Amino acid sequence: MDNNKVVENIYLLVIVTLISVLQNAFFANKVEKECKTNNTQHTSAFERVTCANRNCMDLYPTFLAVMWCAGLCLSQAPAAFAGIIYLVVRQKYFVGYLGQTSQSTPGYLFGKRILSFLFLMCIVGILNYLLTRYFGSNYKEYVDLFTNAASALLLIP
Amino acid sequence: MDNNKVVENIYLLVIVTLISVLQNAFFANKVEKECKTNNTQHTSAFERVTCANRNCMDLYPTFLAVMWCAGLCLSQAPAAFAGIIYLVVRQKYFVGYLGQTSQSTPGYLFGKRILSFLFLMCIVGILNYLLTRYFGSNYKEYVDLFTNAASALLLIP
Amino acid sequence: MDNNKVVENIYLLVIVTLISVLQNAFFANKVEKECKTNNTQHTSAFERVTCANRNCMDLYPTFLAVMWCAGLCLSQAPAAFAGIIYLVVRQKYFVGYLGQTSQSTPGYLFGKRILSFLFLMCIVGILNYLLTRYFGSNYKEYVDLFTNAASALLLIP
Repeated sequence: MDNNKVVENIYLLVIVTLISVLQNAFFANKVEKECKTNNTQHTSAFERVTCANRNCMDLYPTFLAVMWCAGLCLSQAPAAFAGIIYLVVRQKYFVGYLGQTSQSTPGYLFGKRILSFLFLMCIVGILNYLLTRYFGSNYKEYVDLFTNAASALLLIP
Repeated sequence: MDNNKVVENIYLLVIVTLISVLQNAFFANKVEKECKTNNTQHTSAFERVTCANRNCMDLYPTFLAVMWCAGLCLSQAPAAFAGIIYLVVRQKYFVGYLGQTSQSTPGYLFGKRILSFLFLMCIVGILNYLLTRYFGSNYKEYVDLFTNAASALLLIP
Repeated sequence: MDNNKVVENIYLLVIVTLISVLQNAFFANKVEKECKTNNTQHTSAFERVTCANRNCMDLYPTFLAVMWCAGLCLSQAPAAFAGIIYLVVRQKYFVGYLGQTSQSTPGYLFGKRILSFLFLMCIVGILNYLLTRYFGSNYKEYVDLFTNAASALLLIP
């Protein structure tokens, strides 16, 4: 198994993962800064940034797992595209969380639509594999075409 | 590297991952609902559901890593089977955590036996690879047979 | 795709992942023990061990993602080596966190240099792939040599 063959199938996913890591570092730096300013007391700003960071981190493994599964099982371009949009939504959520007063925080969840889309991509990929295996008919190109078109719908706010 | 070849080796793991994502969504929805009901005050029910969710999420990356390593290094069927049982145990833990009074919460850890089994599978897979590489003898079929039998033992409560 | 071919490319990464899982289990056991001793009250020791564990767990998916991407995109030996050093740094951080008085906890972040190194490895791997694809020249062996040398620099404290 040549190394470049492997990279060919995952390089877009790796790029999105790297961007998400950068974003995590940005979040962590915000927390770090608040930690240093208020080391002994727990102010409202500290609590908000910690909570926003934790909510983002709680969902992070789920996001990575779904994105990579979708990318490996179906095709990587739409999965990476959905991943990018998820990161934008996450950025908005984090910034929005910090700006809110503590009485009206946004909910715990965000990016449900994008995660559902990636989830559906996984299921379609698995079904396509099972169909190919047991019936011998490969619908991959139609599915790819459809997935690429559907991923554009995620841009609708 | 044909896409279907890749999917063939991982589709059971992907299915278990998808089920675990659904379960995460179920947990997150519970937290979301409690967040919305008690936005300003931290009641006992809110604390319990948050804590249960956080304990599950803390162990989630570890579980995913061990399951995927076990599936890739040895064979995917027993790994996926152990994964399913882990999800059942996790569901029981979460529901049990909510039902308890705050004085007697169950501990922080759960599913230790299943994670240990997956851990052992990884080690056996690595050892088998090293034996094959340096001694030229491949015990893979005996190991597979044994692993499949051993995974059934996880059903014993 | 023969199973042993897959294992050949990832076995060092799997070993590091297994060691990190063992370390997670060690952290979780510390939390579990504190949970059992102080079930009703939240003492300072309980808060410190919970916080140290949570900070480590928050960064864990990021670490795994970066290490695996670096290992898959470039070469696994330096990635696994950097992973091992990260685990040593994490152990030091955790133990240091417990020993500190609550007034002077170490910051939220740790192991920034190692994660940056792995991050750079990923970028170099992606760039090398893109160069090979569009210009046909493969710099892989020079890059590997350089990365192996650079990973030794991580040992400098």
